[in-house]
Amino acid sequence: MILRNLGEFNLISRISKGMKLSGKVIKGIGDDAAVIKHTKNSYLLFSCDMLLEDRHFKRSSGGYLIGKKALSVNVSDIAAMGGVPEYCVVSLGVPGSLRAKYVDDIYKGIKAVARKFKIDLVGGDTISSKKIIIDIAVLGKVEKKNLALRSDARPGDWIFITGSLGGSLKGRHLDFTPRLKEARFLVNNFKVNAMIDVSDGLLADLGHILEESKKGADIYERCVPVSRDAKDFDSAVRDGEDFELVFTVSKREGGRLIKKWPFKTRLSRIGEICRDKGLYIIRENEKKEKIRPVGYRHF
Amino acid sequence: MILRNLGEFNLISRISKGMKLSGKVIKGIGDDAAVIKHTKNSYLLFSCDMLLEDRHFKRSSGGYLIGKKALSVNVSDIAAMGGVPEYCVVSLGVPGSLRAKYVDDIYKGIKAVARKFKIDLVGGDTISSKKIIIDIAVLGKVEKKNLALRSDARPGDWIFITGSLGGSLKGRHLDFTPRLKEARFLVNNFKVNAMIDVSDGLLADLGHILEESKKGADIYERCVPVSRDAKDFDSAVRDGEDFELVFTVSKREGGRLIKKWPFKTRLSRIGEICRDKGLYIIRENEKKEKIRPVGYRHF
Repeated sequence: MILRNLGEFNLISRISKGMKLSGKVIKGIGDDAAVIKHTKNSYLLFSCDMLLEDRHFKRSSGGYLIGKKALSVNVSDIAAMGGVPEYCVVSLGVPGSLRAKYVDDIYKGIKAVARKFKIDLVGGDTISSKKIIIDIAVLGKVEKKNLALRSDARPGDWIFITGSLGGSLKGRHLDFTPRLKEARFLVNNFKVNAMIDVSDGLLADLGHILEESKKGADIYERCVPVSRDAKDFDSAVRDGEDFELVFTVSKREGGRLIKKWPFKTRLSRIGEICRDKGLYIIRENEKKEKIRPVGYRHF
Repeated sequence: MILRNLGEFNLISRISKGMKLSGKVIKGIGDDAAVIKHTKNSYLLFSCDMLLEDRHFKRSSGGYLIGKKALSVNVSDIAAMGGVPEYCVVSLGVPGSLRAKYVDDIYKGIKAVARKFKIDLVGGDTISSKKIIIDIAVLGKVEKKNLALRSDARPGDWIFITGSLGGSLKGRHLDFTPRLKEARFLVNNFKVNAMIDVSDGLLADLGHILEESKKGADIYERCVPVSRDAKDFDSAVRDGEDFELVFTVSKREGGRLIKKWPFKTRLSRIGEICRDKGLYIIRENEKKEKIRPVGYRHF
Protein backbone atom coordinates (compact mmCIF):
# COMPACT_ATOMS: atom_id res chain seq x y z
CA MET A 1 0.00 0.00 0.00
CA ILE A 2 1.47 3.37 -0.99
CA LEU A 3 0.62 6.69 0.69
CA ARG A 4 -1.27 8.14 -2.26
CA ASN A 5 -3.79 5.31 -1.96
CA LEU A 6 -3.88 5.35 1.81
CA GLY A 7 -4.60 9.09 2.04
CA GLU A 8 -3.62 11.63 4.68
CA PHE A 9 -6.40 10.92 7.14
CA ASN A 10 -5.92 7.17 7.19
CA LEU A 11 -2.23 7.89 7.69
CA ILE A 12 -3.03 10.10 10.68
CA SER A 13 -5.15 7.40 12.30
CA ARG A 14 -2.34 4.89 11.78
CA ILE A 15 0.05 7.30 13.49
CA SER A 16 -2.22 7.95 16.48
CA LYS A 17 -3.20 4.31 16.94
CA GLY A 18 -2.01 2.66 20.14
CA MET A 19 -0.22 5.76 21.38
CA LYS A 20 -0.24 6.29 25.14
CA LEU A 21 -0.11 9.92 26.23
CA SER A 22 0.51 11.34 29.68
CA GLY A 23 -2.36 12.76 31.69
CA LYS A 24 -1.14 16.28 30.94
CA VAL A 25 -2.29 16.05 27.31
CA ILE A 26 -5.90 17.21 26.99
CA LYS A 27 -5.97 16.76 23.20
CA GLY A 28 -3.20 15.19 21.09
CA ILE A 29 -3.18 14.47 17.35
CA GLY A 30 -6.45 15.34 15.57
CA ASP A 31 -7.30 18.99 16.14
CA ASP A 32 -5.86 22.27 14.87
CA ALA A 33 -3.37 22.30 17.76
CA ALA A 34 -2.46 20.07 20.69
CA VAL A 35 -3.88 21.09 24.08
CA ILE A 36 -1.67 20.64 27.14
CA LYS A 37 -2.30 21.34 30.83
CA HIS A 38 -0.70 24.60 31.93
CA THR A 39 -2.02 26.80 34.75
CA LYS A 40 -5.18 26.59 36.83
CA ASN A 41 -7.12 28.58 34.24
CA SER A 42 -5.28 28.04 30.96
CA TYR A 43 -3.92 25.46 28.54
CA LEU A 44 -0.88 25.51 26.28
CA LEU A 45 -1.52 25.11 22.52
CA PHE A 46 1.19 23.56 20.32
CA SER A 47 1.10 23.04 16.55
CA CYS A 48 3.13 23.16 13.34
CA ASP A 49 2.61 23.65 9.61
CA MET A 50 5.03 22.89 6.81
CA LEU A 51 5.06 24.70 3.46
CA LEU A 52 7.01 23.49 0.45
CA GLU A 53 8.01 25.31 -2.74
CA ASP A 54 5.92 24.41 -5.82
CA ARG A 55 3.28 22.86 -3.60
CA HIS A 56 2.20 25.69 -1.29
CA PHE A 57 3.93 28.60 -3.04
CA LYS A 58 6.05 29.54 -6.05
CA ARG A 59 9.49 31.05 -5.60
CA SER A 60 8.41 33.85 -7.94
CA SER A 61 5.89 35.07 -5.34
CA GLY A 62 8.84 36.51 -3.42
CA GLY A 63 10.17 35.82 0.06
CA TYR A 64 7.99 38.33 1.88
CA LEU A 65 4.62 36.77 1.00
CA ILE A 66 5.97 33.26 1.56
CA GLY A 67 7.21 34.14 5.05
CA LYS A 68 3.93 35.89 5.79
CA LYS A 69 1.93 32.84 4.73
CA ALA A 70 4.12 30.44 6.72
CA LEU A 71 3.38 32.14 10.03
CA SER A 72 -0.21 33.09 9.15
CA VAL A 73 -1.32 29.47 8.63
CA ASN A 74 -0.04 28.71 12.13
CA VAL A 75 -1.83 31.71 13.63
CA SER A 76 -4.99 30.45 11.94
CA ASP A 77 -4.61 27.06 13.67
CA ILE A 78 -4.25 28.66 17.09
CA ALA A 79 -7.20 30.99 16.38
CA ALA A 80 -9.34 27.96 15.52
CA MET A 81 -8.71 26.63 19.05
CA GLY A 82 -9.91 29.91 20.55
CA GLY A 83 -6.41 30.80 21.75
CA VAL A 84 -3.61 33.28 21.16
CA PRO A 85 -0.19 32.49 19.65
CA GLU A 86 2.80 33.57 21.74
CA TYR A 87 6.06 32.04 20.49
CA CYS A 88 7.33 30.44 17.29
CA VAL A 89 10.38 28.58 16.00
CA VAL A 90 11.17 28.48 12.27
CA SER A 91 12.86 25.66 10.36
CA LEU A 92 14.02 26.82 6.97
CA GLY A 93 15.48 24.83 4.09
CA VAL A 94 16.97 26.93 1.29
CA PRO A 95 19.44 26.39 -1.58
CA GLY A 96 22.97 27.68 -0.99
CA SER A 97 22.64 29.48 -4.33
CA LEU A 98 19.69 31.59 -3.15
CA ARG A 99 20.34 35.30 -2.67
CA ALA A 100 20.59 36.31 1.01
CA LYS A 101 18.15 39.14 0.22
CA TYR A 102 15.47 36.54 -0.57
CA VAL A 103 15.92 34.92 2.85
CA ASP A 104 15.88 38.36 4.49
CA ASP A 105 12.53 38.90 2.77
CA ILE A 106 11.16 35.58 4.09
CA TYR A 107 12.02 36.70 7.63
CA LYS A 108 10.59 40.17 6.98
CA GLY A 109 7.31 38.46 6.12
CA ILE A 110 7.45 36.23 9.18
CA LYS A 111 8.34 39.18 11.43
CA ALA A 112 5.54 41.36 10.02
CA VAL A 113 2.99 38.71 11.07
CA ALA A 114 4.81 38.16 14.38
CA ARG A 115 4.64 41.89 15.16
CA LYS A 116 0.98 42.17 14.20
CA PHE A 117 -0.06 39.30 16.49
CA LYS A 118 2.58 39.89 19.21
CA ILE A 119 4.39 36.59 18.63
CA ASP A 120 8.03 36.16 19.70
CA LEU A 121 10.26 34.46 17.10
CA VAL A 122 12.55 32.61 19.50
CA GLY A 123 14.52 30.08 17.50
CA GLY A 124 14.84 27.75 14.56
CA ASP A 125 17.04 25.75 12.29
CA THR A 126 18.43 26.44 8.82
CA ILE A 127 19.54 23.76 6.39
CA SER A 128 20.53 23.57 2.76
CA SER A 129 17.83 22.19 0.48
CA LYS A 130 17.10 22.31 -3.27
CA LYS A 131 13.52 23.47 -2.78
CA ILE A 132 12.53 26.09 -0.25
CA ILE A 133 10.91 24.51 2.85
CA ILE A 134 9.44 26.49 5.76
CA ASP A 135 8.10 24.73 8.79
CA ILE A 136 6.94 26.83 11.72
CA ALA A 137 5.92 25.51 15.13
CA VAL A 138 3.82 27.76 17.32
CA LEU A 139 3.23 27.77 21.05
CA GLY A 140 0.16 29.56 22.32
CA LYS A 141 -2.29 29.55 25.15
CA VAL A 142 -6.01 29.53 25.70
CA GLU A 143 -8.14 30.16 28.78
CA LYS A 144 -9.83 26.87 29.73
CA LYS A 145 -13.29 28.38 29.30
CA ASN A 146 -12.40 29.57 25.78
CA LEU A 147 -11.06 26.31 24.33
CA ALA A 148 -12.87 25.35 21.09
CA LEU A 149 -12.33 21.78 19.88
CA ARG A 150 -13.65 20.05 16.78
CA SER A 151 -15.49 17.49 18.84
CA ASP A 152 -18.26 19.34 20.66
CA ALA A 153 -20.77 20.31 17.96
CA ARG A 154 -24.34 19.66 19.18
CA PRO A 155 -27.57 18.80 17.33
CA GLY A 156 -29.42 22.00 16.46
CA ASP A 157 -26.23 24.13 16.52
CA TRP A 158 -26.09 26.81 13.88
CA ILE A 159 -23.05 26.60 11.58
CA PHE A 160 -21.31 29.88 10.76
CA ILE A 161 -18.45 30.83 8.50
CA THR A 162 -16.35 34.00 8.33
CA GLY A 163 -15.42 35.70 5.03
CA SER A 164 -16.09 34.03 1.68
CA LEU A 165 -14.90 30.80 0.12
CA GLY A 166 -13.10 29.60 -2.97
CA GLY A 167 -10.54 30.73 -5.53
CA SER A 168 -7.86 31.49 -2.95
CA LEU A 169 -5.23 30.21 -5.40
CA LYS A 170 -5.68 33.49 -7.32
CA GLY A 171 -3.63 35.14 -4.57
CA ARG A 172 -5.53 35.22 -1.30
CA HIS A 173 -3.83 32.00 -0.06
CA LEU A 174 -0.53 33.94 0.08
CA ASP A 175 -1.84 37.16 1.50
CA PHE A 176 -4.62 36.57 4.00
CA THR A 177 -5.24 37.80 7.51
CA PRO A 178 -5.76 34.92 9.94
CA ARG A 179 -9.03 35.35 11.82
CA LEU A 180 -7.47 35.70 15.25
CA LYS A 181 -9.35 38.87 16.22
CA GLU A 182 -12.66 37.32 15.17
CA ALA A 183 -11.95 34.03 16.95
CA ARG A 184 -11.05 35.80 20.18
CA PHE A 185 -14.21 37.91 20.00
CA LEU A 186 -16.21 34.73 19.53
CA VAL A 187 -14.76 32.71 22.40
CA ASN A 188 -14.68 35.68 24.76
CA ASN A 189 -18.36 36.52 24.23
CA PHE A 190 -20.14 33.35 23.12
CA LYS A 191 -20.16 29.64 23.89
CA VAL A 192 -18.50 28.21 20.76
CA ASN A 193 -19.20 24.46 20.65
CA ALA A 194 -16.86 23.50 17.77
CA MET A 195 -14.44 25.41 15.55
CA ILE A 196 -11.91 24.69 12.77
CA ASP A 197 -10.13 26.76 10.13
CA VAL A 198 -10.75 26.04 6.45
CA SER A 199 -7.45 24.76 5.09
CA ASP A 200 -8.60 21.74 3.05
CA GLY A 201 -11.95 23.20 1.90
CA LEU A 202 -15.26 23.79 3.70
CA LEU A 203 -16.66 20.29 3.10
CA ALA A 204 -13.50 18.53 4.26
CA ASP A 205 -13.00 20.71 7.32
CA LEU A 206 -16.65 20.75 8.37
CA GLY A 207 -16.36 16.99 7.79
CA HIS A 208 -13.69 16.88 10.52
CA ILE A 209 -16.04 18.60 12.96
CA LEU A 210 -18.81 16.13 12.07
CA GLU A 211 -16.55 13.12 12.41
CA GLU A 212 -15.01 14.21 15.72
CA SER A 213 -18.43 15.27 17.08
CA LYS A 214 -20.18 12.17 15.64
CA LYS A 215 -22.89 14.33 14.07
CA GLY A 216 -24.29 15.31 10.66
CA ALA A 217 -25.09 18.66 9.03
CA ASP A 218 -27.37 20.39 6.54
CA ILE A 219 -25.76 23.20 4.50
CA TYR A 220 -27.83 25.69 2.47
CA GLU A 221 -26.26 26.42 -0.91
CA ARG A 222 -27.88 29.87 -1.03
CA CYS A 223 -26.30 30.83 2.33
CA VAL A 224 -22.68 29.92 1.53
CA PRO A 225 -20.63 33.04 0.70
CA VAL A 226 -18.85 32.27 -2.59
CA SER A 227 -15.86 34.48 -3.41
CA ARG A 228 -15.74 36.35 -6.72
CA ASP A 229 -12.49 34.45 -7.36
CA ALA A 230 -14.21 31.05 -7.14
CA LYS A 231 -15.35 29.18 -10.26
CA ASP A 232 -18.68 28.13 -8.76
CA PHE A 233 -20.32 26.89 -5.55
CA ASP A 234 -19.07 23.32 -5.89
CA SER A 235 -15.44 24.34 -6.26
CA ALA A 236 -15.77 27.03 -3.55
CA VAL A 237 -16.72 24.42 -0.94
CA ARG A 238 -13.92 22.08 -2.04
CA ASP A 239 -11.02 24.51 -2.66
CA GLY A 240 -8.50 24.64 0.15
CA GLU A 241 -6.53 27.44 1.83
CA ASP A 242 -9.38 29.84 2.56
CA PHE A 243 -8.23 30.12 6.19
CA GLU A 244 -11.69 31.23 7.28
CA LEU A 245 -13.28 29.98 10.50
CA VAL A 246 -16.14 27.48 10.52
CA PHE A 247 -17.81 27.14 13.91
CA THR A 248 -20.99 26.02 15.60
CA VAL A 249 -22.95 27.66 18.42
CA SER A 250 -26.38 26.97 19.92
CA LYS A 251 -29.37 28.60 18.21
CA ARG A 252 -29.70 31.00 21.14
CA GLU A 253 -26.04 32.06 20.99
CA GLY A 254 -26.29 32.28 17.19
CA GLY A 255 -29.16 34.75 17.33
CA ARG A 256 -27.24 36.90 19.77
CA LEU A 257 -24.07 36.64 17.66
CA ILE A 258 -25.74 37.89 14.48
CA LYS A 259 -26.86 41.02 16.36
CA LYS A 260 -23.50 41.68 17.99
CA TRP A 261 -20.95 40.87 15.24
CA PRO A 262 -18.79 44.02 15.15
CA PHE A 263 -16.41 43.32 12.24
CA LYS A 264 -16.36 44.24 8.57
CA THR A 265 -15.39 40.58 7.95
CA ARG A 266 -18.51 38.89 6.64
CA LEU A 267 -20.30 36.41 8.92
CA SER A 268 -22.67 33.85 7.34
CA ARG A 269 -24.98 31.31 8.91
CA ILE A 270 -24.69 28.44 6.45
CA GLY A 271 -26.54 25.53 8.06
CA GLU A 272 -27.26 23.37 11.10
CA ILE A 273 -25.77 20.44 12.95
CA CYS A 274 -28.00 17.33 12.89
CA ARG A 275 -28.18 14.34 15.22
CA ASP A 276 -27.95 11.83 12.34
CA LYS A 277 -24.62 11.47 10.56
CA GLY A 278 -24.15 12.57 6.95
CA LEU A 279 -23.45 15.89 5.25
CA TYR A 280 -26.25 17.27 3.07
CA ILE A 281 -26.48 20.28 0.76
CA ILE A 282 -29.88 21.94 0.37
CA ARG A 283 -29.60 23.12 -3.23
CA GLU A 284 -31.04 26.46 -4.39
CA ASN A 285 -33.97 24.50 -5.87
CA GLU A 286 -34.64 23.07 -2.34
CA LYS A 287 -33.46 19.59 -3.33
CA LYS A 288 -31.49 17.85 -0.56
CA GLU A 289 -28.36 16.09 -1.75
CA LYS A 290 -25.94 13.92 0.25
CA ILE A 291 -22.36 14.98 -0.32
CA ARG A 292 -18.96 13.49 0.57
CA PRO A 293 -16.87 15.65 2.86
CA VAL A 294 -13.81 15.67 0.62
CA GLY A 295 -11.50 18.52 -0.31
CA TYR A 296 -7.84 19.10 -1.03
CA ARG A 297 -5.88 15.84 -1.09
CA HIS A 298 -2.36 16.07 0.28
CA PHE A 299 -1.14 12.91 -1.47
CA MET B 1 25.45 37.87 -1.98
CA ILE B 2 24.28 34.26 -2.01
CA LEU B 3 23.75 32.12 1.09
CA ARG B 4 26.67 29.79 0.44
CA ASN B 5 29.04 32.76 0.72
CA LEU B 6 27.22 34.35 3.64
CA GLY B 7 27.25 31.18 5.77
CA GLU B 8 24.78 29.93 8.35
CA PHE B 9 26.01 31.97 11.29
CA ASN B 10 26.03 35.29 9.47
CA LEU B 11 22.53 34.40 8.32
CA ILE B 12 21.45 33.79 11.92
CA SER B 13 22.80 37.17 13.04
CA ARG B 14 20.94 38.86 10.16
CA ILE B 15 17.74 37.13 11.29
CA SER B 16 18.12 38.10 14.95
CA LYS B 17 19.17 41.70 14.25
CA GLY B 18 16.74 44.39 15.34
CA MET B 19 14.22 41.91 16.69
CA LYS B 20 12.30 43.04 19.75
CA LEU B 21 11.18 40.24 22.05
CA SER B 22 8.75 40.36 24.93
CA GLY B 23 10.02 40.30 28.50
CA LYS B 24 8.91 36.69 28.83
CA VAL B 25 11.75 35.47 26.58
CA ILE B 26 14.87 34.74 28.65
CA LYS B 27 16.87 33.52 25.64
CA GLY B 28 15.75 33.71 21.99
CA ILE B 29 17.70 32.75 18.86
CA GLY B 30 21.27 31.62 19.52
CA ASP B 31 21.28 28.70 21.96
CA ASP B 32 20.27 25.03 21.68
CA ALA B 33 16.70 25.94 22.62
CA ALA B 34 14.73 29.07 23.42
CA VAL B 35 14.11 29.77 27.11
CA ILE B 36 10.74 31.21 28.11
CA LYS B 37 9.35 32.25 31.51
CA HIS B 38 7.03 29.60 32.93
CA THR B 39 6.46 28.99 36.64
CA LYS B 40 8.16 30.47 39.71
CA ASN B 41 10.88 27.81 39.59
CA SER B 42 11.02 26.67 35.97
CA TYR B 43 11.38 27.78 32.35
CA LEU B 44 9.90 26.39 29.14
CA LEU B 45 12.38 25.21 26.48
CA PHE B 46 11.36 25.33 22.80
CA SER B 47 13.39 24.20 19.78
CA CYS B 48 13.24 22.46 16.40
CA ASP B 49 15.49 20.50 14.06
CA MET B 50 14.93 19.69 10.42
CA LEU B 51 16.35 16.63 8.66
CA LEU B 52 16.36 16.19 4.90
CA GLU B 53 16.87 13.08 2.78
CA ASP B 54 20.31 12.82 1.13
CA ARG B 55 21.66 15.49 3.45
CA HIS B 56 21.07 14.07 6.94
CA PHE B 57 20.11 10.51 6.02
CA LYS B 58 19.70 8.11 3.10
CA ARG B 59 16.33 6.53 2.34
CA SER B 60 18.07 3.15 2.33
CA SER B 61 18.79 3.48 6.08
CA GLY B 62 15.13 2.64 6.64
CA GLY B 63 12.33 4.59 8.30
CA TYR B 64 12.99 3.38 11.83
CA LEU B 65 16.50 4.82 12.20
CA ILE B 66 15.48 8.04 10.44
CA GLY B 67 12.58 8.60 12.81
CA LYS B 68 14.80 7.75 15.76
CA LYS B 69 17.41 10.28 14.67
CA ALA B 70 14.83 13.00 14.04
CA LEU B 71 13.59 12.99 17.63
CA SER B 72 17.00 12.20 19.19
CA VAL B 73 18.65 15.36 17.79
CA ASN B 74 15.90 17.38 19.46
CA VAL B 75 16.30 15.56 22.77
CA SER B 76 20.02 16.35 22.54
CA ASP B 77 19.23 20.08 22.20
CA ILE B 78 17.01 20.07 25.29
CA ALA B 79 19.61 18.04 27.22
CA ALA B 80 22.25 20.65 26.35
CA MET B 81 20.11 23.28 28.13
CA GLY B 82 19.97 21.11 31.26
CA GLY B 83 16.26 20.41 30.78
CA VAL B 84 13.86 17.58 30.01
CA PRO B 85 11.79 17.22 26.81
CA GLU B 86 8.05 16.79 27.35
CA TYR B 87 6.07 17.22 24.11
CA CYS B 88 6.77 17.14 20.38
CA VAL B 89 5.04 17.87 17.08
CA VAL B 90 6.24 16.26 13.84
CA SER B 91 6.10 17.77 10.35
CA LEU B 92 6.67 15.13 7.73
CA GLY B 93 7.10 15.51 3.97
CA VAL B 94 6.99 12.24 2.02
CA PRO B 95 6.36 11.21 -1.61
CA GLY B 96 2.89 9.87 -2.40
CA SER B 97 4.62 6.87 -3.96
CA LEU B 98 6.30 5.86 -0.68
CA ARG B 99 5.05 2.66 0.95
CA ALA B 100 2.86 3.28 4.00
CA LYS B 101 5.00 0.70 5.84
CA TYR B 102 8.01 3.02 5.47
CA VAL B 103 6.12 5.88 7.12
CA ASP B 104 4.91 3.52 9.86
CA ASP B 105 8.57 2.71 10.48
CA ILE B 106 9.49 6.41 10.73
CA TYR B 107 6.84 6.81 13.43
CA LYS B 108 7.96 3.60 15.15
CA GLY B 109 11.43 5.17 15.42
CA ILE B 110 10.03 8.46 16.70
CA LYS B 111 7.79 6.67 19.20
CA ALA B 112 10.63 4.47 20.48
CA VAL B 113 12.61 7.59 21.42
CA ALA B 114 9.46 9.29 22.75
CA ARG B 115 8.76 6.30 25.01
CA LYS B 116 12.34 6.08 26.26
CA PHE B 117 12.43 9.76 27.28
CA LYS B 118 8.74 10.08 28.25
CA ILE B 119 7.87 12.56 25.50
CA ASP B 120 4.27 12.94 24.29
CA LEU B 121 3.87 13.08 20.50
CA VAL B 122 0.92 15.49 20.36
CA GLY B 123 0.55 16.66 16.77
CA GLY B 124 2.04 17.44 13.41
CA ASP B 125 1.54 18.01 9.74
CA THR B 126 2.01 15.73 6.73
CA ILE B 127 2.61 16.95 3.20
CA SER B 128 3.61 15.45 -0.10
CA SER B 129 7.24 16.04 -1.07
CA LYS B 130 9.71 14.43 -3.46
CA LYS B 131 12.40 14.02 -0.81
CA ILE B 132 11.64 12.89 2.73
CA ILE B 133 11.68 15.82 5.19
CA ILE B 134 11.24 15.47 8.96
CA ASP B 135 11.08 18.51 11.15
CA ILE B 136 10.35 18.03 14.84
CA ALA B 137 9.67 20.78 17.34
CA VAL B 138 10.08 19.97 21.02
CA LEU B 139 8.74 21.64 24.12
CA GLY B 140 10.51 20.95 27.38
CA LYS B 141 11.18 22.46 30.74
CA VAL B 142 14.10 23.17 33.02
CA GLU B 143 14.31 24.19 36.66
CA LYS B 144 15.68 27.75 36.82
CA LYS B 145 18.68 26.63 38.86
CA ASN B 146 19.53 23.94 36.28
CA LEU B 147 19.51 26.09 33.13
CA ALA B 148 22.79 25.79 31.19
CA LEU B 149 23.36 28.41 28.48
CA ARG B 150 26.27 28.81 26.06
CA SER B 151 27.12 32.21 27.45
CA ASP B 152 28.35 31.67 31.01
CA ALA B 153 31.74 29.96 30.66
CA ARG B 154 34.28 31.52 33.09
CA PRO B 155 38.07 31.86 32.95
CA GLY B 156 39.69 28.85 34.58
CA ASP B 157 36.67 26.59 33.93
CA TRP B 158 37.54 23.04 33.03
CA ILE B 159 36.13 21.88 29.69
CA PHE B 160 34.66 18.38 29.61
CA ILE B 161 33.22 16.21 26.88
CA THR B 162 31.12 13.03 27.05
CA GLY B 163 31.77 10.01 24.83
CA SER B 164 34.24 10.15 21.94
CA LEU B 165 34.40 12.22 18.77
CA GLY B 166 34.54 11.74 15.02
CA GLY B 167 33.49 9.32 12.31
CA SER B 168 29.81 9.42 13.24
CA LEU B 169 28.94 9.18 9.53
CA LYS B 170 29.89 5.49 9.72
CA GLY B 171 26.57 4.92 11.47
CA ARG B 172 26.53 6.50 14.91
CA HIS B 173 24.85 9.69 13.59
CA LEU B 174 21.73 7.60 12.88
CA ASP B 175 21.73 5.49 15.97
CA PHE B 176 22.94 7.44 18.99
CA THR B 177 21.57 7.91 22.49
CA PRO B 178 21.13 11.59 23.33
CA ARG B 179 22.95 12.40 26.57
CA LEU B 180 19.84 13.37 28.53
CA LYS B 181 20.59 11.17 31.55
CA GLU B 182 24.14 12.52 31.76
CA ALA B 183 23.03 16.14 31.34
CA ARG B 184 20.42 15.82 34.08
CA PHE B 185 22.97 14.25 36.42
CA LEU B 186 25.31 17.15 35.72
CA VAL B 187 22.86 20.01 36.29
CA ASN B 188 21.25 18.34 39.28
CA ASN B 189 24.56 17.80 41.10
CA PHE B 190 27.03 20.40 39.80
CA LYS B 191 27.11 24.04 38.79
CA VAL B 192 27.43 23.79 35.00
CA ASN B 193 28.54 27.19 33.66
CA ALA B 194 28.10 26.53 29.92
CA MET B 195 26.91 23.57 27.85
CA ILE B 196 26.23 22.72 24.17
CA ASP B 197 25.78 19.52 22.19
CA VAL B 198 28.23 18.67 19.41
CA SER B 199 26.26 18.83 16.18
CA ASP B 200 28.63 20.81 13.94
CA GLY B 201 31.89 19.43 15.37
CA LEU B 202 33.76 20.08 18.64
CA LEU B 203 35.69 23.14 17.39
CA ALA B 204 32.59 24.82 15.94
CA ASP B 205 30.37 24.11 18.93
CA LEU B 206 32.98 24.97 21.55
CA GLY B 207 33.47 28.06 19.38
CA HIS B 208 29.81 28.99 20.04
CA ILE B 209 30.41 28.77 23.79
CA LEU B 210 33.53 30.95 23.45
CA GLU B 211 31.77 33.51 21.29
CA GLU B 212 28.67 33.75 23.48
CA SER B 213 30.78 33.80 26.66
CA LYS B 214 33.40 36.19 25.13
CA LYS B 215 36.23 33.91 26.23
CA GLY B 216 39.01 31.76 24.78
CA ALA B 217 40.13 28.17 25.40
CA ASP B 218 43.12 25.83 25.41
CA ILE B 219 42.42 22.26 24.27
CA TYR B 220 44.92 19.42 24.86
CA GLU B 221 45.17 17.13 21.83
CA ARG B 222 46.19 14.18 24.03
CA CYS B 223 43.03 14.57 26.16
CA VAL B 224 40.46 14.57 23.36
CA PRO B 225 38.75 11.18 23.04
CA VAL B 226 38.94 10.23 19.36
CA SER B 227 36.53 7.54 18.17
CA ARG B 228 37.86 4.43 16.43
CA ASP B 229 35.64 5.45 13.51
CA ALA B 230 37.42 8.82 13.08
CA LYS B 231 40.18 9.29 10.50
CA ASP B 232 42.41 11.29 12.86
CA PHE B 233 42.38 13.97 15.56
CA ASP B 234 41.89 16.86 13.14
CA SER B 235 38.83 15.36 11.49
CA ALA B 236 37.44 14.14 14.84
CA VAL B 237 37.25 17.70 16.17
CA ARG B 238 35.69 18.98 12.93
CA ASP B 239 33.22 16.19 12.04
CA GLY B 240 29.63 16.96 12.95
CA GLU B 241 26.79 14.93 14.41
CA ASP B 242 28.56 13.45 17.43
CA PHE B 243 25.72 14.60 19.70
CA GLU B 244 28.00 14.49 22.72
CA LEU B 245 27.89 17.19 25.42
CA VAL B 246 30.64 19.79 25.80
CA PHE B 247 30.42 21.73 29.04
CA THR B 248 32.42 23.85 31.43
CA VAL B 249 32.48 23.84 35.24
CA SER B 250 34.76 25.52 37.78
CA LYS B 251 37.98 23.69 38.70
CA ARG B 252 36.50 22.84 42.10
CA GLU B 253 33.31 21.37 40.60
CA GLY B 254 35.42 19.60 37.96
CA GLY B 255 37.48 17.77 40.57
CA ARG B 256 34.35 16.66 42.35
CA LEU B 257 32.74 15.60 39.06
CA ILE B 258 35.61 13.32 38.03
CA LYS B 259 35.25 11.47 41.35
CA LYS B 260 31.47 11.16 41.18
CA TRP B 261 30.77 10.38 37.48
CA PRO B 262 28.57 7.27 37.70
CA PHE B 263 28.10 6.35 34.00
CA LYS B 264 29.78 3.97 31.61
CA THR B 265 29.71 6.84 29.10
CA ARG B 266 33.23 8.20 28.96
CA LEU B 267 33.93 11.62 30.50
CA SER B 268 37.05 13.53 29.41
CA ARG B 269 38.56 16.75 30.65
CA ILE B 270 39.88 18.24 27.43
CA GLY B 271 41.02 21.77 28.33
CA GLU B 272 40.39 25.10 30.06
CA ILE B 273 38.53 28.32 29.44
CA CYS B 274 40.84 31.37 29.18
CA ARG B 275 40.20 35.06 29.77
CA ASP B 276 41.73 36.04 26.40
CA LYS B 277 39.83 35.20 23.24
CA GLY B 278 41.11 32.63 20.76
CA LEU B 279 40.93 28.84 20.55
CA TYR B 280 44.27 27.01 20.92
CA ILE B 281 45.27 23.37 20.58
CA ILE B 282 48.18 22.14 22.69
CA ARG B 283 49.59 19.48 20.35
CA GLU B 284 51.00 16.18 21.63
CA ASN B 285 54.51 17.68 21.15
CA GLU B 286 53.48 20.53 23.54
CA LYS B 287 53.39 23.10 20.70
CA LYS B 288 50.50 25.57 21.06
CA GLU B 289 48.63 26.26 17.83
CA LYS B 290 45.84 28.76 17.21
CA ILE B 291 42.92 27.14 15.42
CA ARG B 292 39.77 28.44 13.73
CA PRO B 293 36.55 27.20 15.35
CA VAL B 294 35.05 25.85 12.12
CA GLY B 295 33.18 22.62 11.50
CA TYR B 296 30.35 21.32 9.36
CA ARG B 297 29.09 23.97 6.92
CA HIS B 298 25.36 23.90 6.28
CA PHE B 299 25.58 25.84 3.01
